[in-house]
Amino acid sequence: MSVTATPSQRIPVPRNRDNDYTREAAQARTEFARERTGASLEHVSSYSFDPGILSGNVEQFVGVAQVPIGLAGPLKVNGEHAQGEFYVPLATAEGTLVASYNRGMRLLHEAGGVTTTILDDRMQRAPAFVFASAREARAFGDWLDEHFGEVKQAAEATTRTGRLQDIEQYSASRMLYTRFNYSTGDAAGQNLSGKATQAACSWIVDNYPGIERYFLESNFATDKKSSQVNMLRTRGKRVVAEATIPNELVNRIMRSDTELMFRARQVSNLGGFMSGVNNNGAHSANGITAMFIATGQDAANVAESSAAFVHAELDAAGDYYYSVTIPSLIVATYGGGTGLATQRECLELLGCYGSGNVEKFAEIVAATVLCGELSLGSAIVAEEWVAAHDLLGRNRPT
Amino acid sequence: MSVTATPSQRIPVPRNRDNDYTREAAQARTEFARERTGASLEHVSSYSFDPGILSGNVEQFVGVAQVPIGLAGPLKVNGEHAQGEFYVPLATAEGTLVASYNRGMRLLHEAGGVTTTILDDRMQRAPAFVFASAREARAFGDWLDEHFGEVKQAAEATTRTGRLQDIEQYSASRMLYTRFNYSTGDAAGQNLSGKATQAACSWIVDNYPGIERYFLESNFATDKKSSQVNMLRTRGKRVVAEATIPNELVNRIMRSDTELMFRARQVSNLGGFMSGVNNNGAHSANGITAMFIATGQDAANVAESSAAFVHAELDAAGDYYYSVTIPSLIVATYGGGTGLATQRECLELLGCYGSGNVEKFAEIVAATVLCGELSLGSAIVAEEWVAAHDLLGRNRPT
Amino acid sequence: MSVTATPSQRIPVPRNRDNDYTREAAQARTEFARERTGASLEHVSSYSFDPGILSGNVEQFVGVAQVPIGLAGPLKVNGEHAQGEFYVPLATAEGTLVASYNRGMRLLHEAGGVTTTILDDRMQRAPAFVFASAREARAFGDWLDEHFGEVKQAAEATTRTGRLQDIEQYSASRMLYTRFNYSTGDAAGQNLSGKATQAACSWIVDNYPGIERYFLESNFATDKKSSQVNMLRTRGKRVVAEATIPNELVNRIMRSDTELMFRARQVSNLGGFMSGVNNNGAHSANGITAMFIATGQDAANVAESSAAFVHAELDAAGDYYYSVTIPSLIVATYGGGTGLATQRECLELLGCYGSGNVEKFAEIVAATVLCGELSLGSAIVAEEWVAAHDLLGRNRPT
Amino acid sequence: MSVTATPSQRIPVPRNRDNDYTREAAQARTEFARERTGASLEHVSSYSFDPGILSGNVEQFVGVAQVPIGLAGPLKVNGEHAQGEFYVPLATAEGTLVASYNRGMRLLHEAGGVTTTILDDRMQRAPAFVFASAREARAFGDWLDEHFGEVKQAAEATTRTGRLQDIEQYSASRMLYTRFNYSTGDAAGQNLSGKATQAACSWIVDNYPGIERYFLESNFATDKKSSQVNMLRTRGKRVVAEATIPNELVNRIMRSDTELMFRARQVSNLGGFMSGVNNNGAHSANGITAMFIATGQDAANVAESSAAFVHAELDAAGDYYYSVTIPSLIVATYGGGTGLATQRECLELLGCYGSGNVEKFAEIVAATVLCGELSLGSAIVAEEWVAAHDLLGRNRPT
Repeated sequence: MSVTATPSQRIPVPRNRDNDYTREAAQARTEFARERTGASLEHVSSYSFDPGILSGNVEQFVGVAQVPIGLAGPLKVNGEHAQGEFYVPLATAEGTLVASYNRGMRLLHEAGGVTTTILDDRMQRAPAFVFASAREARAFGDWLDEHFGEVKQAAEATTRTGRLQDIEQYSASRMLYTRFNYSTGDAAGQNLSGKATQAACSWIVDNYPGIERYFLESNFATDKKSSQVNMLRTRGKRVVAEATIPNELVNRIMRSDTELMFRARQVSNLGGFMSGVNNNGAHSANGITAMFIATGQDAANVAESSAAFVHAELDAAGDYYYSVTIPSLIVATYGGGTGLATQRECLELLGCYGSGNVEKFAEIVAATVLCGELSLGSAIVAEEWVAAHDLLGRNRPT
Repeated sequence: MSVTATPSQRIPVPRNRDNDYTREAAQARTEFARERTGASLEHVSSYSFDPGILSGNVEQFVGVAQVPIGLAGPLKVNGEHAQGEFYVPLATAEGTLVASYNRGMRLLHEAGGVTTTILDDRMQRAPAFVFASAREARAFGDWLDEHFGEVKQAAEATTRTGRLQDIEQYSASRMLYTRFNYSTGDAAGQNLSGKATQAACSWIVDNYPGIERYFLESNFATDKKSSQVNMLRTRGKRVVAEATIPNELVNRIMRSDTELMFRARQVSNLGGFMSGVNNNGAHSANGITAMFIATGQDAANVAESSAAFVHAELDAAGDYYYSVTIPSLIVATYGGGTGLATQRECLELLGCYGSGNVEKFAEIVAATVLCGELSLGSAIVAEEWVAAHDLLGRNRPT
Repeated sequence: MSVTATPSQRIPVPRNRDNDYTREAAQARTEFARERTGASLEHVSSYSFDPGILSGNVEQFVGVAQVPIGLAGPLKVNGEHAQGEFYVPLATAEGTLVASYNRGMRLLHEAGGVTTTILDDRMQRAPAFVFASAREARAFGDWLDEHFGEVKQAAEATTRTGRLQDIEQYSASRMLYTRFNYSTGDAAGQNLSGKATQAACSWIVDNYPGIERYFLESNFATDKKSSQVNMLRTRGKRVVAEATIPNELVNRIMRSDTELMFRARQVSNLGGFMSGVNNNGAHSANGITAMFIATGQDAANVAESSAAFVHAELDAAGDYYYSVTIPSLIVATYGGGTGLATQRECLELLGCYGSGNVEKFAEIVAATVLCGELSLGSAIVAEEWVAAHDLLGRNRPT
Repeated sequence: MSVTATPSQRIPVPRNRDNDYTREAAQARTEFARERTGASLEHVSSYSFDPGILSGNVEQFVGVAQVPIGLAGPLKVNGEHAQGEFYVPLATAEGTLVASYNRGMRLLHEAGGVTTTILDDRMQRAPAFVFASAREARAFGDWLDEHFGEVKQAAEATTRTGRLQDIEQYSASRMLYTRFNYSTGDAAGQNLSGKATQAACSWIVDNYPGIERYFLESNFATDKKSSQVNMLRTRGKRVVAEATIPNELVNRIMRSDTELMFRARQVSNLGGFMSGVNNNGAHSANGITAMFIATGQDAANVAESSAAFVHAELDAAGDYYYSVTIPSLIVATYGGGTGLATQRECLELLGCYGSGNVEKFAEIVAATVLCGELSLGSAIVAEEWVAAHDLLGRNRPT
């Protein structure tokens, strides 16, 4: 049987073996694509930086997606790391998104700003170990607890900034599923967690007989997926944004009403509980994605970063306590795409580029999300509120 | 009471009331930002198109995020709408992503390509109606079924392409939660669904007495959130990509082994079931996000588009049937960001720009995802497989 | 290799091939058990009925579990099927359970009773069909819709009371998962649904070529398991119990307070959303299980019948609207264990034995559950409320 | 406003204030019920024990539910606590249940028995603490970690057998949700956990200023409800039952086939993942409920005890490794209903009554469940297997 024919028909994308990160190499690919598909790629080919910076970020580079950025703000943040006013770059092509967040920022500015708090911080890799039976798996779990110090040493030997905080165990059948939890400094840390855990596993396998097999990942870190375990146990930053908004402001700025908003929230809470959603709020993914693209975060992490817990309370005076907790916000101010040309500029716009800024950035993201939640939450009931007032004659044009 | 002081401190982002979509208006904002933050925004300001096209896509435009695009392919698709070879633009800053998808595309090319099928297609808005009691809610549900024709008419009067297919009902307490399901042509359709449902609700409220209150959205469409209801009942496209890969190819191209991959899959399946994940596969969000950014999709929809069901079977010969079902893939080839400069070019690269192409595009996305799943799935066990072969002496250098 | 030795060591429980449903046959097993284990089984052997009635209910009968029944009530129900006052038999060994439900019944009696409404009613079996590829699965789905009439006929030929209402389709990979939804009269209906669906599948396989394989159950009916699909789409009865309770009554009867209860509810709602629970209420399984055991329901269905949605609202006057929706309450007043000696008597106590009573019974169960929710919900905050009043000097002994 | 009329119409169930736990008191209630409803309650009134033993188990006792018990076995268990053969009492009215479990017990006896392992053991109460803001909630979390010793002391002062193992923290908004995890000896332990946690909370509130409010339960223990958190983190016993069954036995005893069973399992796994079920197995609730009723367990705990993880592997020879992990099995051999007349006898039948036996009992339950899973799992594909063999001519009558 001959299969020579098939591979010969396959024409791979051209690469330059010497240096593939040049305008010329990119241009060669553009032309290749143009010839084969007829697409001009004129705008794609228009970028303002030297492709030499892209090594480690992309392969077979042809050009760029130019994603429009709108500027919203000022956002007032009363964080522990982010304090003061920020102008927030939002990369999006969805009309009204920037306007809506901007409006929420105005509301919360007048309400005194958004209080933000980082509750937890951990990145993980989740190997599973397979044994002859459940009893052996359990024994290994005990051994792992006892040898945490050595495992930690093996893991941390591979990384300058990563620290292994603990190893969670989840058992089923003859497997032990684990979550290796790391602090990862200003990097998102998926790569360092993977590398460190790989090293830890090598040490473990060398030192513990009886492991039938292990897999470095087992759907317990749920990277780029949404999961209850990450909502419960945190992946990346667990961060809260909260504020109390006087009803007077909601009436005046949003043409809406807190009591109606609270009723809508209750209905939405039950809807979310029934529908099995990962977020009982409105649309946190909108703000998060727009900030992620602008600042060089990995937008695929929107999968897990889109989870949220909204909790609101209405007091007797009609003032509205509103909070959003993001349990798995994955952000970086260093590494990944954060150092690219426009991405770095957007981080600099927030005073967040580079080491020591990741908590500040996480707080700004959470504060932005809160503004968007209140903006949409008030808009959703505004029509009814206005209609009600019309009926009552209060809004009649004079 | 005077509140004059506070607003005076708040300096909003400048807008040009006459025409805000010009280079000048953008430049004014860039300078505003530069002054207040010190960020240069030099690269952000470098874009190749006329901002006039951005109306309806973004507000307070300052410039662009330049997201690097790598070209992967050829991807061979045996779809109903996509047929043949495609070179796929992936916008990402995550190193190895393009290479990994590219490698999977090679594997599946040699295996004869990826078969793709769209199973369902529906976009929704989910109003909840509140009544005096559960009994009234139930009566309304019956009325709604009986008057579907008129509701449909009211909804469709607002849209050229949207068609109301049916209205699902989910009841609890004194509320009736509904899902208005639309077909939306080549648009993603969230906006038209919202507008049509708003009109439908107006008609309903005018014609059905006894509705205490309704909310246009109730966490049952779960826009930009992941939910079981969308995994069950579809949001956007429900699309399957499948292939059977001979073990020989996995050995040769991936240096891996299908039997090991299948074992890893079983462990991963159980891990995912325990962890409460929305995707028992590997990393579909990576390919989806990269294609979404390149082609002007709304990347915030990665929240729901990241859900996936992987199903694999190993036959006696070691050949590996592998499939991925994406139950809520939200894509467009028209509207939203698809007409922007680089975004349109990337759709053109795939032969997918404009009307009549959305199914084709959905199939290409699904096929791409499958390639990524197999690539990562084989890599994850490759080391062990190579190690096993080393032990057996087969891979010794000669 | 000989394996004769092993089976010879296995001593099965004795059976009487002629008639195994006699006191003698039971006694023979009791003695067998006594000899082999030393357990007296004196009380187990004490039962008041003729074992002849047990055929179809149990095999290898040895005696009975005597589960204590407490009587709670009067429960006031304003249902469509249950109207008036009921004394409710609760079989339990958990101290305070009866007292707690009884207290809730008193509260709701004074509040005017519990309003109950059955929203939906459907029992299912969920076969999955496997095809060569997803496309064939989709084609089969279309065919199934078109031939619903014939499938229905095939299914209903096997049953006197069951009616096939519709067939839901859920697709993934090369499988079509279905839910055959039946109305089942006064029986719980799992058996008739299974039998009818088996017949329907036989007809389908005979008439549709290309089904590679089918499985009569595929984890989509989730019999005796809790699932989101059943919470969304109903299994058994979907029933609501609701009432509005004046705060004055809560103060006086429960020594508690609605505003505090509402706050606790909000915290509990969020807790439940995070914990991934199937019930955001308090303890509906307690009342349901106690009624199930007393009345001969299949208590294994507590797995799915324990799901519940609680929705509460506090009005400006402090009055408390409270509702519980049970989406998958599986009950019967005919068949299964309902005709056994004590079980039938307990149904008779409620006026619910036999045909035509299952809706009435479902409403009584739901009303009972509501009483238990309010009783525990008020107790949980009563201590704090009393303490608060002590501080304020209101409850000082005079 | 006068409300005197309403209460006067309410006729409560009669109680004897001096001693309500006598045959006379029960008889008075029986007559009361008979008069008001016409139900005879003849069999309900037939019980073999002195009601004096019921104090602490039930209020307003009227009699018993007589639930038929079938005896299955011998069940062969290779546990750490349960070793040897057991005859298992199953209280049920569902025909074929006992026969089906019995058949599975035969299969697994011939396969060498069921291996059982308890992986974890913890019972919890889950108070939530509310603060002025998220930051205060976080600070309290730190304090709670630091003062674990004192909290433990306060908790354990209330109980002879309970030990506080650790306190898990889950944060959202301005709340800290906690899980107080206890070991509880041979009791199920919900009551002691509640009492101990109440005492701990009192100590905490006395020693930590700034707690705005706390609630003793917050839907994070999910007592009598099914939840992902309990499936992940264990409630009661986390116990595994596993075995490897030769295909030859499945062919001979079950008239079925392991390869077909494995295929059905894969389809069922995916079905369960999609449907959002709490158990990817078949029907563990059946065996668990029947044993719970027979032995005086709280059958309302079937809600959480019905969760299960099934993991199966097929080896090249067709032998079938099968395991079921029950992550939240709530059992007792002491306290609750375990000391009642028939219930105690059934525990004695298993050699499990009283202190020091709860692990043994948990293992027997898990082993029973495994037998039921394999029995139903093989039956579900048996017809097809037989049909296939018929086609091939192998099963032709000669």
